[in-house]
Amino acid sequence: MISPGQELPIGPQVVHVGHVCIGGPQKTLMCGPCAVESEDQVEKTAAFLSQVGIPIMRGGAFKSRTSPRAFQGLGREGLELLVKAARRHGLLTVSEIMDPRDLGFFSDRVDMLQIGARNMQNLALLREVGRSGKPVLLKRGFMSTVEELLLAAEYVLREGNQEVVLCERGIRTFEPLTRNTLDLACVALVKRMKPLPIIVDLSHSLGRTDIMVPMAKAALACGCDGLMIEVHPNPVKALSDGKQSLSFQGLANLLNDIEPMLRHVEGNSP
Amino acid sequence: MISPGQELPIGPQVVHVGHVCIGGPQKTLMCGPCAVESEDQVEKTAAFLSQVGIPIMRGGAFKSRTSPRAFQGLGREGLELLVKAARRHGLLTVSEIMDPRDLGFFSDRVDMLQIGARNMQNLALLREVGRSGKPVLLKRGFMSTVEELLLAAEYVLREGNQEVVLCERGIRTFEPLTRNTLDLACVALVKRMKPLPIIVDLSHSLGRTDIMVPMAKAALACGCDGLMIEVHPNPVKALSDGKQSLSFQGLANLLNDIEPMLRHVEGNSP
Amino acid sequence: MISPGQELPIGPQVVHVGHVCIGGPQKTLMCGPCAVESEDQVEKTAAFLSQVGIPIMRGGAFKSRTSPRAFQGLGREGLELLVKAARRHGLLTVSEIMDPRDLGFFSDRVDMLQIGARNMQNLALLREVGRSGKPVLLKRGFMSTVEELLLAAEYVLREGNQEVVLCERGIRTFEPLTRNTLDLACVALVKRMKPLPIIVDLSHSLGRTDIMVPMAKAALACGCDGLMIEVHPNPVKALSDGKQSLSFQGLANLLNDIEPMLRHVEGNSP
Amino acid sequence: MISPGQELPIGPQVVHVGHVCIGGPQKTLMCGPCAVESEDQVEKTAAFLSQVGIPIMRGGAFKSRTSPRAFQGLGREGLELLVKAARRHGLLTVSEIMDPRDLGFFSDRVDMLQIGARNMQNLALLREVGRSGKPVLLKRGFMSTVEELLLAAEYVLREGNQEVVLCERGIRTFEPLTRNTLDLACVALVKRMKPLPIIVDLSHSLGRTDIMVPMAKAALACGCDGLMIEVHPNPVKALSDGKQSLSFQGLANLLNDIEPMLRHVEGNSP
Repeated sequence: MISPGQELPIGPQVVHVGHVCIGGPQKTLMCGPCAVESEDQVEKTAAFLSQVGIPIMRGGAFKSRTSPRAFQGLGREGLELLVKAARRHGLLTVSEIMDPRDLGFFSDRVDMLQIGARNMQNLALLREVGRSGKPVLLKRGFMSTVEELLLAAEYVLREGNQEVVLCERGIRTFEPLTRNTLDLACVALVKRMKPLPIIVDLSHSLGRTDIMVPMAKAALACGCDGLMIEVHPNPVKALSDGKQSLSFQGLANLLNDIEPMLRHVEGNSP
Repeated sequence: MISPGQELPIGPQVVHVGHVCIGGPQKTLMCGPCAVESEDQVEKTAAFLSQVGIPIMRGGAFKSRTSPRAFQGLGREGLELLVKAARRHGLLTVSEIMDPRDLGFFSDRVDMLQIGARNMQNLALLREVGRSGKPVLLKRGFMSTVEELLLAAEYVLREGNQEVVLCERGIRTFEPLTRNTLDLACVALVKRMKPLPIIVDLSHSLGRTDIMVPMAKAALACGCDGLMIEVHPNPVKALSDGKQSLSFQGLANLLNDIEPMLRHVEGNSP
Repeated sequence: MISPGQELPIGPQVVHVGHVCIGGPQKTLMCGPCAVESEDQVEKTAAFLSQVGIPIMRGGAFKSRTSPRAFQGLGREGLELLVKAARRHGLLTVSEIMDPRDLGFFSDRVDMLQIGARNMQNLALLREVGRSGKPVLLKRGFMSTVEELLLAAEYVLREGNQEVVLCERGIRTFEPLTRNTLDLACVALVKRMKPLPIIVDLSHSLGRTDIMVPMAKAALACGCDGLMIEVHPNPVKALSDGKQSLSFQGLANLLNDIEPMLRHVEGNSP
Repeated sequence: MISPGQELPIGPQVVHVGHVCIGGPQKTLMCGPCAVESEDQVEKTAAFLSQVGIPIMRGGAFKSRTSPRAFQGLGREGLELLVKAARRHGLLTVSEIMDPRDLGFFSDRVDMLQIGARNMQNLALLREVGRSGKPVLLKRGFMSTVEELLLAAEYVLREGNQEVVLCERGIRTFEPLTRNTLDLACVALVKRMKPLPIIVDLSHSLGRTDIMVPMAKAALACGCDGLMIEVHPNPVKALSDGKQSLSFQGLANLLNDIEPMLRHVEGNSP
């Protein structure tokens, strides 16, 4: 239990990724495909994201798949495709790093390093990204407590890197109607303790798109600093996680619905 | 899994408790102490609730406590105290019934029968309240799936009672910082399937008051039809659950913060 | 947490059901169908159980089913069928009671009252069986901690009934290959604290029969006082839980495999 | 779900670590401290283990601690101390590797590479140990399903390393009396599917020593191929996990109690 007297991993309240401030009055959106699949896919996606004003493009090149028989991502080639497409359209990039030996390759290319849920307690990786100068997006493990998430972040902070954004993405429970159970109390607790900005990954927590609008509103209402949402030119044909990815039209609709909540921060009384 | 072709427990979308419509454009608040403790306590609480415009007063007379050594409630005398105080101030009442043999006593007094989380699958009780003409507030068991909650509601509906309101109150997980993990996707799913109104019990799900404002906003933002919140004239001295009860001032502050969200229903695009 | 200084619900270490001692050197087996379906079914089962030396026959007449559309049991008629068949073959009976108003009917017929997992915290029912003179088999709720199980037992003990046997039957987790996760540490903890005898329900915890032999051995090895196993003349045609029920031949094989472990209690060093 | 028709990661049924066969008729014990703390500590432990016939010594040099403020292990120096002490007494060694860049250092020293629960889905590490010729002990993540464990093992097998032993060490649930919930059905399922040997880590699953004897018996009875047990010369002063470590006398008592179960494999009927 985190108790009042205990030293907390206090980092800065605002993290800068390029020109974007995460943790300030403006909510930050990160969108893109689960996995980079082709030049055509990322080009179309980057063009669309740019058009609707999403500043940061996500896309997995190295995929942490449960099964070795599943699509493992395009690797370094995939990362190059993602970054080229994003740059053509003036977007920043975030992508998951899985191996500490890939740090140099990633640092030269992406704007933000993502630590995936399965690697939240991969201490070698945490320390390595802590020694880089890159902003880090640290996802909560689906079996990890809020305190464990904060302690994992502290592994990064202790190496000298203060640019850490947390990400709530659902925890594993017995409820089967959603892929994981989105724990918005995690967001409220983190915002109350104020150590670091926190965003919500709607796609991985829900695993379905039909309740994404109300859950996006809930996430924003409880104070998160941004949203991560998977989008794909053709979700039905996606090589991974198509079921939880929005189409371009779906994302446009969602943006329209949540637009009033992106512009300002509502004050919560103390 | 609930599949499209399957028969769903479709009840009315609006449930009437006295003059209050649950499930309509106005959000419904139910507040009061965890347990009825004394005439003074319920009188002060009823007076305050009336003053701030809360229409339904809650209060436990028969308490479903984990330990037989804990305060078990004042029983029938407690229910009388609750109802008298509420009536003096023009409030409606909801209180938990635990024994099917108490139905007559409850029906003559309260306006809404509550089935607690531990009794969500107490079929004898579900059938008994299903045969009464009283509105029912059915709480989700803390280790029950959304589908199981809907099937429990169906036990009530099948006996002829269509006046059922569901209540999400958190599920049991490994996360210790909150008493339970509030599963707002349950609310979004129920509202999408539209069988019955659903409210959120913030006090039991969170077990703490310091994040109640942002979580109330999140619950309302994702479309719930109302909130249940515990309030006590002196939470520190409460005989049960004081830690999760707001003071009168705390409730007034919360109402002030969420007021803009109580007035209208925001449309979620399909 | 149960701490050393705390008052524990200490009951007798041996519970008598007819001529059978539960909690003594001999392990006790309780077998029979999930649900009583017909006179033929219980007659065949009773004859077989008698032949292989099982002393207590189980069978559900009132079924606590998740869905109101599922088979709900034959009710009072089912209980009569169970008891008649058992008596014809010299067997004792245990069956689940769900409604406190049925106590008289059950007490006149069965030898042991079962409280099902979904009713472990149905306090009206616990108190009612606590006022009867009948031995009680109290199943652990699939969402309940070991401490909550002991406190539920204490509700029975406090009414004056010391004849309580606990039953571990698996808890709800994220693991899908078994119906529930059998928590044998519960058995070891209960035996260490020594308040009450405890048996293991293999059928409901596993939900499958192919690993029943090794799990029966594990349960006996860690010190449980008996086993509950579902058996059906024709599991494929069972109206409920056929997938987890053994055939007569399957039970005979299992008994053969575990026979050496039923005869004596191995001492565990302190 | 693993279905009959699906390709399973079938490895050898026996894994050789030095002269020790894991998965054969003899059960294999691996004991030692949670963390290597000093030369004196590992020397005393190795001497004792050799005396009581334990063939494999465990000891953490690189510790995967939740908090960066906790003792992180002695690192490379610690591994050297462990290996020297073990060799002096003719013992084999197993120790956790956390960083793929440490593979060469580990391979030159230890006899078996351990992948810890937090790294079960660290794919870079799984692939790296898969490319080594060393036997691997793969621990189940505390919130991973049995199928996910088998798929993680498949990442190692696919790189050409068939020498993989699985380890059940408890899963995270809501039950607080044990550190994790030991899921012995995992052992029975793995033994039934027969892909790989599996042992049980009693210390991490239970987090307490008072029920270790009955749980060791249960683990052996359901067919596991060995046990991992933490032992420390002075558990009260251990720098990590002292609460779950046996003293030398405690281990000697346990060995005495389980001795009859280590000698032969009991046949389970099909």
